[in-house]
Amino acid sequence: MNVPTIFDASRLELFCRHVFERAGVPHEAAVMVAESLVQADLRGVDSHGVVRTQIYLERLEKGMVNPLANVEVVSRFGATALVDGNNQYGAVAGNHALRTSLDIARDLGAGIVGVKNSNHFGTCAYYALKAIQQGFALMVMSNASQTMPPTGGVRPFLGTNPLAVGVPTGDVPFILDMATSVVSRGKIIVAAQKGERIPLGWAVDKGGNPTTDAEAALEGSVLPLGGAKGYGISMFIDILSGVLTGAGFGKYVNNMYENWVDAQNVGHIFIAIDISRFISLEQFKSRMDQYIAEIKAEPRAEGIDEILVPGEIEQRLTESKRKTGITLPFKVAAELHAIGKKYEVDLDAAAL
Amino acid sequence: MNVPTIFDASRLELFCRHVFERAGVPHEAAVMVAESLVQADLRGVDSHGVVRTQIYLERLEKGMVNPLANVEVVSRFGATALVDGNNQYGAVAGNHALRTSLDIARDLGAGIVGVKNSNHFGTCAYYALKAIQQGFALMVMSNASQTMPPTGGVRPFLGTNPLAVGVPTGDVPFILDMATSVVSRGKIIVAAQKGERIPLGWAVDKGGNPTTDAEAALEGSVLPLGGAKGYGISMFIDILSGVLTGAGFGKYVNNMYENWVDAQNVGHIFIAIDISRFISLEQFKSRMDQYIAEIKAEPRAEGIDEILVPGEIEQRLTESKRKTGITLPFKVAAELHAIGKKYEVDLDAAAL
Ligand SMILES: NC(=O)c1ccc[n+]([C@@H]2O[C@H](COP(=O)([O-])OP(=O)(O)OC[C@H]3O[C@@H](n4cnc5c(N)ncnc54)[C@H](O)[C@@H]3O)[C@@H](O)[C@H]2O)c1
Ligand SMILES: NC(=O)c1ccc[n+]([C@@H]2O[C@H](COP(=O)([O-])OP(=O)(O)OC[C@H]3O[C@@H](n4cnc5c(N)ncnc54)[C@H](O)[C@@H]3O)[C@@H](O)[C@H]2O)c1
Repeated sequence: MNVPTIFDASRLELFCRHVFERAGVPHEAAVMVAESLVQADLRGVDSHGVVRTQIYLERLEKGMVNPLANVEVVSRFGATALVDGNNQYGAVAGNHALRTSLDIARDLGAGIVGVKNSNHFGTCAYYALKAIQQGFALMVMSNASQTMPPTGGVRPFLGTNPLAVGVPTGDVPFILDMATSVVSRGKIIVAAQKGERIPLGWAVDKGGNPTTDAEAALEGSVLPLGGAKGYGISMFIDILSGVLTGAGFGKYVNNMYENWVDAQNVGHIFIAIDISRFISLEQFKSRMDQYIAEIKAEPRAEGIDEILVPGEIEQRLTESKRKTGITLPFKVAAELHAIGKKYEVDLDAAAL
Repeated sequence: MNVPTIFDASRLELFCRHVFERAGVPHEAAVMVAESLVQADLRGVDSHGVVRTQIYLERLEKGMVNPLANVEVVSRFGATALVDGNNQYGAVAGNHALRTSLDIARDLGAGIVGVKNSNHFGTCAYYALKAIQQGFALMVMSNASQTMPPTGGVRPFLGTNPLAVGVPTGDVPFILDMATSVVSRGKIIVAAQKGERIPLGWAVDKGGNPTTDAEAALEGSVLPLGGAKGYGISMFIDILSGVLTGAGFGKYVNNMYENWVDAQNVGHIFIAIDISRFISLEQFKSRMDQYIAEIKAEPRAEGIDEILVPGEIEQRLTESKRKTGITLPFKVAAELHAIGKKYEVDLDAAAL
């Protein structure tokens, strides 16, 4: 089998889009799902990139997501709205909620939009980037299926519930986008796929013992960052995304890989802020540029070449991968190749 | 000197209030400042309790805070507002912003209120508690003067910028209230005052070296929790509290203990959500109770008696200290005693 492993980002996105379309996903929804996946690869967040194409398709084929569902605003009051994903793909529900939150923020300075009955929605940065391009600040969170024990517990109860905060800047972007675990579970999936070991402290096995075996860690739990504080952050994300919206929370957020009976019922929350209602956008951007310049000019510890701000690594990777292409592990490329065969979309056309 | 060290909470609060009043703080403002300090002691957050009376008074005596200032809403648009603390005490500016955010949320489902020109505002839980008592969810953040290096840096640039999230529940409360450092700088102040050593990993000395010496740590920096993630969280709190509001950020948040020339110019941000615009308050509370009951029923690791939720420790301490009193270190009690002498308020009357 002659499988390409280096891809042009735009053409890889086109490949994914076409695959989803052939699988029955309407054009607009396929655009969003493919965009979200490939953008993650561009940003170096491989764990949330096209590696997820396979599982997204399997959920579709088995009727576990509904790509024809209408995402709808089921209630709207003042600066708040509740969106029902109706079991659409997370990226589609997420985009709808993002637009709604920005529309409300345009009208009222701020918009807080919850989402229920959604699915895995990719990286949080995907939404934050769109918001900051329109001059808004965005805080976005999602719950996820159980992977982390509470402080003092032994088995998974909370998801690695991610959080992003992005704000517009003039120069270096600011997008903090993080899982609430020491590391994202996706990184352990990637390590397992590459057959690599993981550092101690990332996870415990299913008996609650520290482990460096990626497979064992996947059967066990990743740990919250910073002990009880990360546990608390993960809980509040679950509360705002799930308890508040009517989505699942805790064990009621179903595992995309393991549960083939129920919809995932993931919940998200979007908090959009129109900067210009507090301070002019220009002034904000110049204050941000000053802030970032000052932090980057700080004296550095030994062995540190540069002080970075959140999102900077990912932006640089995006710029370079746009030029030099996205390199996938052979296993992932081969999976895409097989998917291409099945849905009659040519992966080779995406090769660099 | 015969100095009491165990105090009745209500009478200790009265003592503080009277001291502030005698020092020239109007009644209403003195009520809030005293309430905030004593509540912190009740919650076991000694670092933010009456131990701060001395520095709050010193700032006042030297004209560094203005207890006569009018806190005012300087702009209001839709669901957003900007409050100018006009260099009032943080607790006064914070209460004003809290009320404003709740009023807006009552009208529009959500309210986002920024504060500039404020001062140290105590614990974030103080505001979260008031919000949840009125059936609202609150996320509240503040920046603080420089104590933590950025990831890769050696000297303080960011504050331990705290964050609280509180939501109403039927039974066990949920209030996550945390500094973004591994531990709060206040805990190191307390350790230094008690002459105790601190655990390794909490802080570095002024040369950037790990230390267990509390005094050396106070001259150096506390570390952000969870490495780059905590650094990023602390930054976004600074951005929303400071860059967005027009308050100080980074080095422009002045140190309450060290800078006797400039006002602190602390910034805060309050995000209030009217639960009932998403789901009925009763339903939310019962979902929270179920969530918390499920998490508390999780199997426990060896040596763990109970799984706790954020805020639970502090609530229990409050209940017990209301009965058995607040015990202060001798050094703090002696300081209060001297303050009482100076302002002619009898500390003994607060003794249990
Ligand atoms: N949808 C879901 O269910 C789900 C669940 C978990 C995670 N995720 C996603 O997984 C992705 C990965 O999360 P993660 O926690 O592994 O990310 P990460 O640890 O690689 O990075 C976290 C953040 O820290 C910043 N950062 C890292 N090193 C830095 C440094 N030295 N200086 C300054 N900033 C630095 C990054 O720019 C990023 O903003 C995110 O995109 C997240 O949204 C999604
Ligand atoms: N105004 C300021 O400038 C400023 C700056 C920093 C901190 N603070 C305040 O300092 C205080 C102390 O912060 P901290 O970070 O040291 O608090 P902490 O580490 O004691 O607690 C942090 C949170 O974790 C929870 N928690 C702790 N152990 C737990 C466990 N085993 N299970 C479940 N939950 C648990 C607590 O209930 C709390 O909500 C806070 O009130 C904060 O607002 C204020």
